[in-house]
Amino acid sequence: MSERALQIGLAGLGTVGTGVYETLCRNRELLQARTGIPFRVKRVAVRDIHRKRDVEIDPELLTADWRDLVEDPEIDIVIELIGGTEEAHRLVEEALRAHKPVVTGNKALLAEFGGELFRLSAETKTPLYFEASCGGGIPIIQSLQSSLVCNYVRRIAGIINGTSNYILSSMERKGVSFEEALAAAQRKGYAEADPTLDVNGWDAAHKALILAMLAYGTPLSPENISVYGIERVTPTDFRFARELGYNIKLLVVIRHHGERNALELRVQPSFVSHKHMLSNVYGVFNAIAVHGDIVGETIFYGRGAGKNPTASAVIGDVMLAMRDCRHPEHHSGFHPYTKQLSLLPQEETVTPYYVRFHVADKPGVIATIAAELARYDIGISGTMSSARREDGEGEDTCDLVFMLHACPWGKLCEALRALRVHEGIGPHPAVFRIETLNEEA
Amino acid sequence: MSERALQIGLAGLGTVGTGVYETLCRNRELLQARTGIPFRVKRVAVRDIHRKRDVEIDPELLTADWRDLVEDPEIDIVIELIGGTEEAHRLVEEALRAHKPVVTGNKALLAEFGGELFRLSAETKTPLYFEASCGGGIPIIQSLQSSLVCNYVRRIAGIINGTSNYILSSMERKGVSFEEALAAAQRKGYAEADPTLDVNGWDAAHKALILAMLAYGTPLSPENISVYGIERVTPTDFRFARELGYNIKLLVVIRHHGERNALELRVQPSFVSHKHMLSNVYGVFNAIAVHGDIVGETIFYGRGAGKNPTASAVIGDVMLAMRDCRHPEHHSGFHPYTKQLSLLPQEETVTPYYVRFHVADKPGVIATIAAELARYDIGISGTMSSARREDGEGEDTCDLVFMLHACPWGKLCEALRALRVHEGIGPHPAVFRIETLNEEA
Repeated sequence: MSERALQIGLAGLGTVGTGVYETLCRNRELLQARTGIPFRVKRVAVRDIHRKRDVEIDPELLTADWRDLVEDPEIDIVIELIGGTEEAHRLVEEALRAHKPVVTGNKALLAEFGGELFRLSAETKTPLYFEASCGGGIPIIQSLQSSLVCNYVRRIAGIINGTSNYILSSMERKGVSFEEALAAAQRKGYAEADPTLDVNGWDAAHKALILAMLAYGTPLSPENISVYGIERVTPTDFRFARELGYNIKLLVVIRHHGERNALELRVQPSFVSHKHMLSNVYGVFNAIAVHGDIVGETIFYGRGAGKNPTASAVIGDVMLAMRDCRHPEHHSGFHPYTKQLSLLPQEETVTPYYVRFHVADKPGVIATIAAELARYDIGISGTMSSARREDGEGEDTCDLVFMLHACPWGKLCEALRALRVHEGIGPHPAVFRIETLNEEA
Repeated sequence: MSERALQIGLAGLGTVGTGVYETLCRNRELLQARTGIPFRVKRVAVRDIHRKRDVEIDPELLTADWRDLVEDPEIDIVIELIGGTEEAHRLVEEALRAHKPVVTGNKALLAEFGGELFRLSAETKTPLYFEASCGGGIPIIQSLQSSLVCNYVRRIAGIINGTSNYILSSMERKGVSFEEALAAAQRKGYAEADPTLDVNGWDAAHKALILAMLAYGTPLSPENISVYGIERVTPTDFRFARELGYNIKLLVVIRHHGERNALELRVQPSFVSHKHMLSNVYGVFNAIAVHGDIVGETIFYGRGAGKNPTASAVIGDVMLAMRDCRHPEHHSGFHPYTKQLSLLPQEETVTPYYVRFHVADKPGVIATIAAELARYDIGISGTMSSARREDGEGEDTCDLVFMLHACPWGKLCEALRALRVHEGIGPHPAVFRIETLNEEA
């Protein structure tokens, strides 16, 4: 312990930054014992150095300019927790150019500029760590980089947005609507005032892009991927799902199609069998199922967000960075194995489906739908209907659910389009993919 | 890639050894791309070099003496997969003394000689990797050492014996007896001809000792810990468990009692609430729930044994060893944080309990039991009974279940002893701990 202490520069003292600072102080003895490396936080960059804070911090440490970290020759490691993409992009870029390893938890930054930043990291031989960018405290990134390194990843399926999982959990358990569940989540602090990116699937999509980059080395463009949020999930669908043996989860699915040199990447609320562990992930928890060719199915579960869980991931990376720092020529880093993969067009992705039509309750409707599906060569594995109800205009209607065998999404869309012209069949059926994820002994 | 290839010596070509060799060959391109380090298997030590093998291997590589690996100055890393403790102990010791990093998956070895071997590893500054010793392909060891490094571990609870979990899963699902489920597991190759260590809890206990050593730096002696197997779990208990909202799992529980400087470590079939993820782990799968002070609850799930999953863990360690080898002065190793902890005596460990008595179906029995429990200050949270049946000697009997509030194990044992003198109450009630593991948002 007589070595010079490693000096850490922390940029950002929001929720996670505060958690990181507090934990580095509180659990210092543990960390130094386990790593054998002394360290200290030398500088903390904040937007407003005069603001009153929840954490006790020596004002001398504070600076309003993150360049004070990047340009300080004594600082060995920079932690980026300022959020956003523009300023954070500059910060990470300049830190890497200054040969300071960077730890970040900024998923939006990596989803947008990951390809470029990882190239810069390789060029400058300066590692960029990002465990906290996906799955909060869940050690998914380091596991993919290290313990599971020998695996070709066949499939990743995950619940990686805590807010939407909290909302879906409330809907399932309490039978409330999306709007009610969202409002309750906001009251409890599990959803932000502007929950857009959480509920429309894009936060999960950003994380999925990071996982895909890691597993396949393929920088995918956010524009081309298929992303659906949870805004249109209804209590009716939850009731049918339960009866059919499923739960509804906002799922990220990444699947490698070796024979086509293609990657399937999509985000949507999906039906997950009650038998699969992912169906039992509730509240703000996240879980990521990784299927590797050697290891088989593994699942990582934990708190996907929040001050301390995310701080735990950041500090795990900081300690890795400290070990690497001791030997700058030693790049413990991970180079994604890259084969040129194209993105499988959404129309060609294949799953079974649940389709719920709102129909007039009269003879012939089932026959019409079944015939149209048959015309598109789509098999039906089962049907189910709700009790009839009166629609307020004197007509009896009911919900009619079709469980469909696996077929390409494009074909399903064609069939649904063709059904629109038929009288008595509501034009906007609820469609959910049924994910087949099971591997069990 | 122009550097000299790192040379690997593999000792043992049984099931896992074969999986390691095959995977190093088959996924070589992937591994070299991801790590940037070229490698080759230089020597393979086997018991019988003439035996016919399932894997194609150059006979030139084979040797019948593991000393050929340890004494070869060109070999950089030794993988120990010969099993057993005596010979393996010598092998690992000599490899460390020769400054060759060792990768092992030998839980019995570490449970017995771990303290000594880790000291030798520290003295010789030569790392010893052991991901494969616990949880098969599940990356629990590296996660505790790296991603979760900043956490004081409050509790570890795990299902870490696949054979017993497979047997309990069959019993639950098919309602069969332990003996029938064991025989079926043996027929399918999920239980060995001699399943003793799997079903009596000791295989799980060995792994628990490794986890405890890692999390707390405390080398505990196997003699003092409390280990119960699954041999006496009955279909009757499964039926009651289900009605009460529980599943029965062979659980390892390690709990830190900071206020007493003590560690609770025990292995037994336990009641786990249906609401907890661990209750849904079926077949040969394993799962380990780690509760850290910063990260909260995390769970790691995957195949806990078998050729390929275990090979995946071994190779993850080999790649870590290769990175470390490039810079022998760089010890990426993890030093457990150690505080002197004593083992909490079994009698003082506290949980709620399920106790099933076999009783004569006559008035006064419930009153007798309840009174005796009250005398020992043990609270009852509920009771349940089975339909009466005729015991073959003309007397009506039934099963009477008491759900008890948390109390020390020692106190419960006293109460149960006191109950033995009462007529009409079977002297050997079935007792299960009810584990309270929930942390959910």
